[in-house]
Amino acid sequence: MSSKVRLYVDHPLGAGQTVPLDRDQAHYLFGVMRMGAGDGLSLFNGRDGEWHAEVAEAGKRGGSLRAVAQTRPLALPPDLWLLFAPIKKARTDFIVEKAAEMGARRICPVQTDFTNSDRIRQDRLQAHAVEAAEQCGGTFVPSVEGLEKLGALLDRWPAERRLMFCDEARVGQAVPDVAGPSGAQGGAGDGPWAILIGPEGGFSPAERERLHALPQAKVVSLGPRILRADTAAVAAMTLWQLRHGDWQADGEPSGQGPTAPGGRP
Amino acid sequence: MSSKVRLYVDHPLGAGQTVPLDRDQAHYLFGVMRMGAGDGLSLFNGRDGEWHAEVAEAGKRGGSLRAVAQTRPLALPPDLWLLFAPIKKARTDFIVEKAAEMGARRICPVQTDFTNSDRIRQDRLQAHAVEAAEQCGGTFVPSVEGLEKLGALLDRWPAERRLMFCDEARVGQAVPDVAGPSGAQGGAGDGPWAILIGPEGGFSPAERERLHALPQAKVVSLGPRILRADTAAVAAMTLWQLRHGDWQADGEPSGQGPTAPGGRP
Repeated sequence: MSSKVRLYVDHPLGAGQTVPLDRDQAHYLFGVMRMGAGDGLSLFNGRDGEWHAEVAEAGKRGGSLRAVAQTRPLALPPDLWLLFAPIKKARTDFIVEKAAEMGARRICPVQTDFTNSDRIRQDRLQAHAVEAAEQCGGTFVPSVEGLEKLGALLDRWPAERRLMFCDEARVGQAVPDVAGPSGAQGGAGDGPWAILIGPEGGFSPAERERLHALPQAKVVSLGPRILRADTAAVAAMTLWQLRHGDWQADGEPSGQGPTAPGGRP
Repeated sequence: MSSKVRLYVDHPLGAGQTVPLDRDQAHYLFGVMRMGAGDGLSLFNGRDGEWHAEVAEAGKRGGSLRAVAQTRPLALPPDLWLLFAPIKKARTDFIVEKAAEMGARRICPVQTDFTNSDRIRQDRLQAHAVEAAEQCGGTFVPSVEGLEKLGALLDRWPAERRLMFCDEARVGQAVPDVAGPSGAQGGAGDGPWAILIGPEGGFSPAERERLHALPQAKVVSLGPRILRADTAAVAAMTLWQLRHGDWQADGEPSGQGPTAPGGRP
């Protein structure tokens, strides 16, 4: 893991581009990391790849950076949404962090019949996704959507987006090969998908019936033990990445290979 | 998820067996959960399966339970060890919790050249493993070993135990099919294995060289993004369970099927 500072900025990046810093960013770079004028770091904005930049001006309450050269192109993760029912604060934060690391493109908190929480701090969760992208070397930041009722989301579910639905009522049953025969694995080009992780109390009978009836849904079991929602999120994303995403098995090149479009150069 | 109380006890379980409670257990059952004499709960001790029990005597500082009947046999997870380098407290706790949920049989904190921490609270980590087993419906509790130097562990590495080693220097490379051809998948009977998760600073060049030279080692990459150690632990255990453990794909029965020996009835 590189010890080089990586910073997300909500600003266009290009050769010679000046990037202003807000007070928090200035505090982090110059106060916490003790950087000064001329020091180098990496920038990304989720759109223009990763850039090498230098500190142009260091101040206590602000400053600016200058983007020098692109070091990596944008690496979009596969077109995967993670839908989950918010749980206790620390575990919700954790799910968002893990979704960013594991390569989800969109994070959708959903309210289910048995969800306890009826609101989320969307800005705080988005900040967690940014921090995870800074940490994991990503050039993309998944968007954290507002809390929405699962039913409303299913009412307008896109016809082409498949939904991997982890039904804990199936604990102890075999794990289906959601990809079908292995020859059908499509790598990062395997079409749009979503993963739905249920709440701690499980899905209601009505929700379960509706999900099973959804033509786009594929029901999976996550092994013989009951997993907490945060564990289930990581395990389900691993399963999906192995079968449909950008974790490709040796000797099975598909799509454009491991470096694109969801991979790292 | 059942709302029934599940309690781990370090005591033999059998029909009619009386199980004394210590002060903490009494506080939890009678103070927190408001249970009283005659109320039912589930017990397990990691050896005798799960038992239905009733409160025999409820006191402020103690009490006793009576085991009535076995409700499930012992379900051992596959013979998998998880080796990891301790990191910050919350993430170390998390790794132990996840190892118990995901079905490791033994949890081994290891000290690597770049590990910051030189001690662990073994009793606290073991308590986390117990709590995770109570939560996830398990009948087995993995043992948390004392902190040991990675080199010392490798010096006496068992000849028959394979080691899945997650080398972050391979980030961006293809994920090897550690099972070889899919026909070779052996389910829960696939021999003893261990998974080694590196520290945040990565392995040292000397460690990497030694691990690559170990005949039992299989190097894997966990996809194109750098994962934090706690995420890597869950992802690697998922990968392993899918290919070698008790998460079996539909239509690929192997060993004794999904209910034994690592499964749930």
